[in-house]
Amino acid sequence: MKDLSALVRDALAEDIGQGDITTNATVPADARCQAWLIGKQDGVISGIGVFRHVFELLEADIREWDGLTDGTRFRKGDKIVGFQGRTRAVLMGERVALNFVQRLSGIATLTARYKAALEGLNVRLCDTRKTTPLMRKLEKDAVVHGGGTNHRYALFDGVLIKENHITAAGGIRTAIKRAVEGTHRLMKIGIEVTNLEELQEAVDAGADAILLDNMSLEDMRRAVEMVKGKKVILEASGNITLETVRSVAETGVDLISVGALTHSAPAVDLSLIIKNV
Amino acid sequence: MKDLSALVRDALAEDIGQGDITTNATVPADARCQAWLIGKQDGVISGIGVFRHVFELLEADIREWDGLTDGTRFRKGDKIVGFQGRTRAVLMGERVALNFVQRLSGIATLTARYKAALEGLNVRLCDTRKTTPLMRKLEKDAVVHGGGTNHRYALFDGVLIKENHITAAGGIRTAIKRAVEGTHRLMKIGIEVTNLEELQEAVDAGADAILLDNMSLEDMRRAVEMVKGKKVILEASGNITLETVRSVAETGVDLISVGALTHSAPAVDLSLIIKNV
Amino acid sequence: MKDLSALVRDALAEDIGQGDITTNATVPADARCQAWLIGKQDGVISGIGVFRHVFELLEADIREWDGLTDGTRFRKGDKIVGFQGRTRAVLMGERVALNFVQRLSGIATLTARYKAALEGLNVRLCDTRKTTPLMRKLEKDAVVHGGGTNHRYALFDGVLIKENHITAAGGIRTAIKRAVEGTHRLMKIGIEVTNLEELQEAVDAGADAILLDNMSLEDMRRAVEMVKGKKVILEASGNITLETVRSVAETGVDLISVGALTHSAPAVDLSLIIKNV
Amino acid sequence: MKDLSALVRDALAEDIGQGDITTNATVPADARCQAWLIGKQDGVISGIGVFRHVFELLEADIREWDGLTDGTRFRKGDKIVGFQGRTRAVLMGERVALNFVQRLSGIATLTARYKAALEGLNVRLCDTRKTTPLMRKLEKDAVVHGGGTNHRYALFDGVLIKENHITAAGGIRTAIKRAVEGTHRLMKIGIEVTNLEELQEAVDAGADAILLDNMSLEDMRRAVEMVKGKKVILEASGNITLETVRSVAETGVDLISVGALTHSAPAVDLSLIIKNV
Amino acid sequence: MKDLSALVRDALAEDIGQGDITTNATVPADARCQAWLIGKQDGVISGIGVFRHVFELLEADIREWDGLTDGTRFRKGDKIVGFQGRTRAVLMGERVALNFVQRLSGIATLTARYKAALEGLNVRLCDTRKTTPLMRKLEKDAVVHGGGTNHRYALFDGVLIKENHITAAGGIRTAIKRAVEGTHRLMKIGIEVTNLEELQEAVDAGADAILLDNMSLEDMRRAVEMVKGKKVILEASGNITLETVRSVAETGVDLISVGALTHSAPAVDLSLIIKNV
Amino acid sequence: MKDLSALVRDALAEDIGQGDITTNATVPADARCQAWLIGKQDGVISGIGVFRHVFELLEADIREWDGLTDGTRFRKGDKIVGFQGRTRAVLMGERVALNFVQRLSGIATLTARYKAALEGLNVRLCDTRKTTPLMRKLEKDAVVHGGGTNHRYALFDGVLIKENHITAAGGIRTAIKRAVEGTHRLMKIGIEVTNLEELQEAVDAGADAILLDNMSLEDMRRAVEMVKGKKVILEASGNITLETVRSVAETGVDLISVGALTHSAPAVDLSLIIKNV
Repeated sequence: MKDLSALVRDALAEDIGQGDITTNATVPADARCQAWLIGKQDGVISGIGVFRHVFELLEADIREWDGLTDGTRFRKGDKIVGFQGRTRAVLMGERVALNFVQRLSGIATLTARYKAALEGLNVRLCDTRKTTPLMRKLEKDAVVHGGGTNHRYALFDGVLIKENHITAAGGIRTAIKRAVEGTHRLMKIGIEVTNLEELQEAVDAGADAILLDNMSLEDMRRAVEMVKGKKVILEASGNITLETVRSVAETGVDLISVGALTHSAPAVDLSLIIKNV
Repeated sequence: MKDLSALVRDALAEDIGQGDITTNATVPADARCQAWLIGKQDGVISGIGVFRHVFELLEADIREWDGLTDGTRFRKGDKIVGFQGRTRAVLMGERVALNFVQRLSGIATLTARYKAALEGLNVRLCDTRKTTPLMRKLEKDAVVHGGGTNHRYALFDGVLIKENHITAAGGIRTAIKRAVEGTHRLMKIGIEVTNLEELQEAVDAGADAILLDNMSLEDMRRAVEMVKGKKVILEASGNITLETVRSVAETGVDLISVGALTHSAPAVDLSLIIKNV
Repeated sequence: MKDLSALVRDALAEDIGQGDITTNATVPADARCQAWLIGKQDGVISGIGVFRHVFELLEADIREWDGLTDGTRFRKGDKIVGFQGRTRAVLMGERVALNFVQRLSGIATLTARYKAALEGLNVRLCDTRKTTPLMRKLEKDAVVHGGGTNHRYALFDGVLIKENHITAAGGIRTAIKRAVEGTHRLMKIGIEVTNLEELQEAVDAGADAILLDNMSLEDMRRAVEMVKGKKVILEASGNITLETVRSVAETGVDLISVGALTHSAPAVDLSLIIKNV
Repeated sequence: MKDLSALVRDALAEDIGQGDITTNATVPADARCQAWLIGKQDGVISGIGVFRHVFELLEADIREWDGLTDGTRFRKGDKIVGFQGRTRAVLMGERVALNFVQRLSGIATLTARYKAALEGLNVRLCDTRKTTPLMRKLEKDAVVHGGGTNHRYALFDGVLIKENHITAAGGIRTAIKRAVEGTHRLMKIGIEVTNLEELQEAVDAGADAILLDNMSLEDMRRAVEMVKGKKVILEASGNITLETVRSVAETGVDLISVGALTHSAPAVDLSLIIKNV
Repeated sequence: MKDLSALVRDALAEDIGQGDITTNATVPADARCQAWLIGKQDGVISGIGVFRHVFELLEADIREWDGLTDGTRFRKGDKIVGFQGRTRAVLMGERVALNFVQRLSGIATLTARYKAALEGLNVRLCDTRKTTPLMRKLEKDAVVHGGGTNHRYALFDGVLIKENHITAAGGIRTAIKRAVEGTHRLMKIGIEVTNLEELQEAVDAGADAILLDNMSLEDMRRAVEMVKGKKVILEASGNITLETVRSVAETGVDLISVGALTHSAPAVDLSLIIKNV
Repeated sequence: MKDLSALVRDALAEDIGQGDITTNATVPADARCQAWLIGKQDGVISGIGVFRHVFELLEADIREWDGLTDGTRFRKGDKIVGFQGRTRAVLMGERVALNFVQRLSGIATLTARYKAALEGLNVRLCDTRKTTPLMRKLEKDAVVHGGGTNHRYALFDGVLIKENHITAAGGIRTAIKRAVEGTHRLMKIGIEVTNLEELQEAVDAGADAILLDNMSLEDMRRAVEMVKGKKVILEASGNITLETVRSVAETGVDLISVGALTHSAPAVDLSLIIKNV
């Protein structure tokens, strides 16, 4: 929870700085309120932990917390969370807390829509590294809350040879050979290919996992045929939309990764209202 | 530039951690490349500084940098920036650099569309505090690159009494009185109202700037009438879209603030390609 | 309280470093004592919070705390605070705690003397930015404890065009115009002038608040006349002493700012004595 | 220079925060100026390094630097330092730079006055640990610039048993014994005494250095007699003023320490003026 | 190089703190010297980069650097490195620089001895996570300098189910199943077993890499037989010494890991001598 | 305890980074276990505090802690510590906790062996500055746990003129003179000499403590004679082993310092085993 605390503390510093001059002037220091987080549209909630942590860091003295947990669906008008706390802390943290939870719920909500489109199919829906700087952990959690699965976390915990690596290495075969020699023995070797010839070359060179980048449905189907019976995992990626995701899955690939889950999910509209107590 | 460096450094740490195992294994340490940032759709660029800074922090030894500056429009297929550098550094920083510049260009591009809708009208189009945690400065700059104007930066540099403050203070009059007494003499007093009665009360109590929250066009027009000749600034806010922004401006308000500029702008599609040199 | 903690922690690190070798060698680890903070001259106390926080950070296990609160007057010989705690922590923190509280009480005491000189007059006595590096918050609080009022906090939360800005901008009119255009709409425009011609120019250019720098009493009186009925605030500043402050106030200015409150207040003499328990 | 950089950076952050809104709005980004630091009273300068470092951290692009070095005397009206730089950086850093150099020069100036009072006598004039939190290094340097000598730096680099330690240890003898056993063999043992009996006890117990706290001149003279021929150092301390310091020295003590040098030196009046270039 | 800088900076702070009082008092500020790092026994050098970085951080103004690179053998009396620099910086950094390079060369030297014992055999000699806190990167590099190969870096970049995990999971089969489901698709599954029954169970459950913990040579031979033809990697570990390492390798395992390489390598004796220049 | 926390936190970050993927996948979040730290050889324990702190920082919710305290001897097979906690936290922290405690116990165990060799003699057995970077405090404590005594902590809290300082100063006499003048009056002056002529020169110049570097037993005996009756401390140092330490002590020196205590003590073999509860 330490890293999250640092992130929230920095976010609060960004917004509050030397002090919330409006709140300090207008709200009595000892005032307390009942607050509610309200859905202003339907969605899947994510980020309740960070939402709450904002107020804890401001020493809001939270009591009678009651509400949904991450991954729960809500409807417009629902009270997602209710709690009592020091009014000053609640108003100082309001915007930062909403900025987090609206974005994360946006991701969970979009993921859930993709997941619904894949209903009944046996395929992993994955995120990518196209996340907001410094929010990867929260955004990857939001993908899980929406029903998705996480891909590798970052550059340090998985080998994935991409097009630019192949260019730099001078070819698929060399790139894979170097990866095998240059990494420890508990790593698989993943590689990105753009057509079936490259796929064959990668398989022959010993790749364990292959990302099919922007291939046609027909080529993906043939790719699935080509690796049948081999211990090779196939991943589809590249501009996969809510409209196309199901047909991609039906080609038989093992997993589908979608960058838009994190880089272009619109914020979910939520608001915070209070009542003096 | 210090804060920006810290942000970029943290973003790189998040993605690279103990090392980019793929790049380290597959790309020779002394390899250099020519790289291009390519537009995969039309847009307005923002974030070139942070894009470049990513590679500088990785000691990419950048040379022959050439390209657009922030605020410039580009078309699909355009080379936005070209440069030469150490291949390892370029590939390690690629994703983080793109994550920044795609998001920021998304904001600039959306702002430019709002701005186009307001052509010829004398109104300030402003951002809000609904920004991504830790990226406020960059995102507010992106709004300027798209043609917008910045509102107050944060809670410390402007008094804006919102609905929850009024609730906590027990009324508009009390809230304004406390704000006048509790802040230094170089601050104006801003307040948010939701109808014309509240507007009148705020004006009478001495407010300098008034935010009209989610009011009808008709009410906004009457609000403009009500404060005519008084030294009071009117701001419109609340669910203003590309479709409605022009009619809002035509009511005669002084400024319009739009949260979606920063919280829901979809990322602009950009990619980085390299060639060995 | 976070920033304060960091400040105190750094101050303790500065004085204790790798360890208080005298205390560690001479005082048993489990010894406890009763300690008193004693006034060795008359004054107004300020900094009790940071005084106590020093010992808390050293895990002094404070009990039976009893004493004055910030802003209270005390006389020579008075017990300002009494408490029990671990002797090692008390002795390790003694000097740092005194260094804080003696300086802050010095400021509060001096402010109270200025305030006394202004008795019965309706004028704000303000501090300046001439504070000790890293102690601005504490020193501005000390001014309040002495009966004064805070001016803007820093360069980020108030526009004040000073002589050097006017030089750089090329004149009062240009400077004010740029300030209006270049800042958000919740800021007033303040400016420093040195004579009545400049005052007139500033008023005409739309300044909201005007600092009269080192003007004669006669000129200040005429300045007050000149802005009568206009929504303009007048501030007097520049070498105002305990002897002159009342006549300055009687000119009718709205506020008086005095740098000496923070930059030249002599420390108040206080000491800490203990008894074993 | 690292620690100093951190201190200055924090001081700048305190005053500038998110930005100097006045300077950014009124001064062109590319403007440059000639600046002078001017003495508005006589004094001894100290803090030139930190003064300059303020502008370096703001990337002022300083050129043609010319001026006095620390420890030099100046008169009212003297140009202490002149330099050219980016105007924005100069104006942003002005107040912080002055806050440092005015305080430090105040210390140097006061020390020089004490030193003058001791002319011709063979005694060390020393500082104490009564310094401003986080500025000990700079303030101790200022004492040297004024002609004084530094005492131990902090609690970690010298054993000094004070009255409260004696109380906690249960007596002078025990305290000294514990100090000898509990510290390494490169440390002397110092102790504070308040009368001649205690002095005798301390000498007998093996103290190497003895601080005579608030003793009469007569007692100090007898103390000097008592330790004649012994390898023991005598220090006088406690409310020694400019008026009394010479007679204290004439008792024959080895060193005199004066807290007021750092805790109550009034700031020296200095100002910064600029001319566009 | 950033992390390394932080490590070295902290190490210097630990040893120098407020200042090297001996060097500051005895060595003129402008003195320069020629310095040599001398071997006082035979060995393999490692840590030259960090050794040099110590002096760079102290602004030693290094010139005419000349010497061996990491991984080179040296003999007693050899000049390993020679350079010129500011004498104060050289003497202040001497101990910290030696503390690093003596430890790291100890590791490289011990690894080289193990490696020599394996001459002609096709097996990876690996390190473990039994490294000195905060020095893992340097120590793993030292293993490479001695001729060894790195194992996984840490807990985040490789799955290795150890005995305690099996206990907690309730058995080998469950542990492997959970690992497959709970990690991304670019990870292999490694597991530690202590006998041949467990080995069989792990293979059947789909393990990709198996660590044979403290098994007899006979059992290791049979283990190699059991997995012949399967895509499974075998690692031997547990109290393998210089005397036994060759026979372990001859059983046919793929890799051998030795904790003593990093946790018990004695420091190599090196010294630094200077001459005034 | 603050510094220690930072050290442990960094060590955990080094090993856990983004997460212990094996433990997270295989161990249920709510599982708890009984854990024991077991001796796999005889030794003296040191580092129990840091061992426990590792688990506290991971929020292991430790209960029923029971075990030895630092400085206690244990035998192979002994349960040194037993406790219950969250299994995930126990397994995540296991390696880091062992890395600390094995190294520190190695130091305590080796120190105890030297101490045993000195039984009955009145001499201080001291450590040196040849410690592991960032672990000096812990390692110096381990020396005390093994029965030794600490020497100066670092370069800031003791004057010790070494051979390179003498070279830089141009001779013993000058070096000592400068040290007396350049340091405060609570410091003794220590110096390292390599023969009896240098010893005589150091004594004549006023040295308080003298380190005899690598001298023969015969010379050390004569050195002791030479300073008899003078207030001078003699220290022996340089390649003193378990075999030679007693005869060195019998020469009559006051203290013996041994670098190997910290730089070459082999880790003590300890392991952690768990049982589900």
